[in-house]
Amino acid sequence: MQRKMGTRWILGCFCAMWCVCVEAQDENRIPAKGLAVLSKGDAFQPYEFTRHAVGEKDILLEILYVGLCHTDIHAVREDFGKSHYPMVPGHEIVGQVIEIGKEVTKFQMGDYVGVGCMVNACRECSSCRDHQEQFCRKGTIYTYNSVDVYHHHEITQGGYATNLVVSEAFALKIPKNADLKRVAPLLCAGITTYSPIRFSQVQKGDRVGVAGFGGVGHMAVQYAAKLGAEVIVFDITEEKRADALRLGAKRYVNVLEEKNLAELDDSFDFLLSTVSANYDPMMYVRMLKRGGEMAIVGLPSHTEINIVSLVTQANRKIYGSLIGGIQETQEMLDFSIANGIYPEVEMIPATPESLEQAYQNILAGKVKFRYVMDMKTMKQ
Amino acid sequence: MQRKMGTRWILGCFCAMWCVCVEAQDENRIPAKGLAVLSKGDAFQPYEFTRHAVGEKDILLEILYVGLCHTDIHAVREDFGKSHYPMVPGHEIVGQVIEIGKEVTKFQMGDYVGVGCMVNACRECSSCRDHQEQFCRKGTIYTYNSVDVYHHHEITQGGYATNLVVSEAFALKIPKNADLKRVAPLLCAGITTYSPIRFSQVQKGDRVGVAGFGGVGHMAVQYAAKLGAEVIVFDITEEKRADALRLGAKRYVNVLEEKNLAELDDSFDFLLSTVSANYDPMMYVRMLKRGGEMAIVGLPSHTEINIVSLVTQANRKIYGSLIGGIQETQEMLDFSIANGIYPEVEMIPATPESLEQAYQNILAGKVKFRYVMDMKTMKQ
Repeated sequence: MQRKMGTRWILGCFCAMWCVCVEAQDENRIPAKGLAVLSKGDAFQPYEFTRHAVGEKDILLEILYVGLCHTDIHAVREDFGKSHYPMVPGHEIVGQVIEIGKEVTKFQMGDYVGVGCMVNACRECSSCRDHQEQFCRKGTIYTYNSVDVYHHHEITQGGYATNLVVSEAFALKIPKNADLKRVAPLLCAGITTYSPIRFSQVQKGDRVGVAGFGGVGHMAVQYAAKLGAEVIVFDITEEKRADALRLGAKRYVNVLEEKNLAELDDSFDFLLSTVSANYDPMMYVRMLKRGGEMAIVGLPSHTEINIVSLVTQANRKIYGSLIGGIQETQEMLDFSIANGIYPEVEMIPATPESLEQAYQNILAGKVKFRYVMDMKTMKQ
Repeated sequence: MQRKMGTRWILGCFCAMWCVCVEAQDENRIPAKGLAVLSKGDAFQPYEFTRHAVGEKDILLEILYVGLCHTDIHAVREDFGKSHYPMVPGHEIVGQVIEIGKEVTKFQMGDYVGVGCMVNACRECSSCRDHQEQFCRKGTIYTYNSVDVYHHHEITQGGYATNLVVSEAFALKIPKNADLKRVAPLLCAGITTYSPIRFSQVQKGDRVGVAGFGGVGHMAVQYAAKLGAEVIVFDITEEKRADALRLGAKRYVNVLEEKNLAELDDSFDFLLSTVSANYDPMMYVRMLKRGGEMAIVGLPSHTEINIVSLVTQANRKIYGSLIGGIQETQEMLDFSIANGIYPEVEMIPATPESLEQAYQNILAGKVKFRYVMDMKTMKQ
């Protein structure tokens, strides 16, 4: 009887303490304003919400710029699986530090900071130890639309917002002389192309092909050209020819018009496919030299590689690539700023109307090459 | 008028000389006996035919042993396209030199010689110069069922026969101490596995997987084990377990029985798929470490790799492999004999009946691991 009383007493105390803690935590939550889709099929609208409190190793950013990525549209529309609503998208984020946790060492107040596709991971598994947090074995916490197991399973909300709380370990340092407006898309489109170009060790004198010259592809061209490669761009329109040549391509091939694609067979050291519509991957595999590599970052829904075709085009390697780890993202940022490599951006104000119009333009292929939303223009 | 007469005269002389040449060539043709399929669907039967004359850089072999390869069955049955009949298959050939052309320098009378899947190529194109004659841009001449553009477009006939005429450039030296009976399958099954194992630079300490443990797979296990790799074999039967462990595998996984295949994910440096039935390649891709490579040599008719799956299993490289060039085939032979690496063979006599039975056993998966036909037993 006495023992039972004791247990109840301890349990009662624990509950009371827990409640105090949660209340304290709730009090410290950070109010934020954003542009959200409240449920599937809705238009964007202003949305007020809160972020988790600034932990000892966290920083609070005021968001300055956020890039619009095609993946945002996929998530909003549930193209690749169930989404959580309300949803504030955005994973190409540039901000300025306005609060720091007690144990933060990497950042100071006022620093410019980038946040990309992820905000947390277990930091212990083999992938995390290997600096590949995007493959965390316990589950990467993405910047939005992700269940944050490290913060009471709340759903993460992204960068179409006034602020963001993030662990310093998942925040990137933006070099001082950076053109901040144009940094945002580096955090996704930049690392998505930089990572496979480095993984396949592209170097001076290599012949490199970039299939698909959009927001992602136009970054690949710049990295490969800067590394000294001879870059050939493949797309299906004449409209992008001048931009491709201006950004460093030696040649632009309109695959719908080119009569003699076969003359390019067996000539590339590396090919990067950013194509997101269905296509014939063997057309590009054939263009690889033996020992050459093709990295795939575009996500067409129904494109398959036949194994027998792969054997007849022997010794040409194919692999997929998915963004990059935090360490490599920092390396990419430093490399990009040092070499003046930026996306081509079109600025839009942070209003539901401009966002809806931008989405329509992205879907219609009318953007050259990345929209960036100026979050300072958001109504407070 | 005079000019017209002259032209006729010259033309007449040329025709006469050409006829003399062809007759002389016909006289020098080499009579051969073999086992052939006369038309699609027929059974094998004895067949007399002739080989082209021994050219200045050719050698004539008396064939001692010939291996039976599953590809022979595909060709006989037109599984992968039109065949030429009558057809004498056989591209795993061991013979002894019984005649040499005037300009032959690589071989002497009495030498033991191997001939594999090809007997000629242009020797000038980028593939040939790169010692990859199996990818000759003007067309590789295969050992049988191939139009030999270098010999009046006659159809090549293979090694289920008493002899073979071949350019010395496409004949392999068999080291003196070799176990001749067991050398034959090295010329196809051996090089098919040795080449990708070398291409992916398998080395001591690597974890290597071999999917499919048949005539091809059991060679891969031996090469990888000899190079110091930890080899794990995947197949769908318990019957091959003991053989796999005896030939150097550290572990044998029956994929139909194994409860926890996922524990092998992300753990292989190299995987070789010799599987010829349709299967899920992503099961194996998942088992690769990041940066690991999977080579495919088996030819299932309808196996596809989905591109989105490849991206989610990022940084794991896949490629096809197709036999190997002449230089590498010689390297493989030398390595195999020096290290006592041979196929497991079952000898059969060179009769139509035993050949038909062997084909049935191969198709039923009853062969362990390669049939070799003793051509000395053929009725003269």
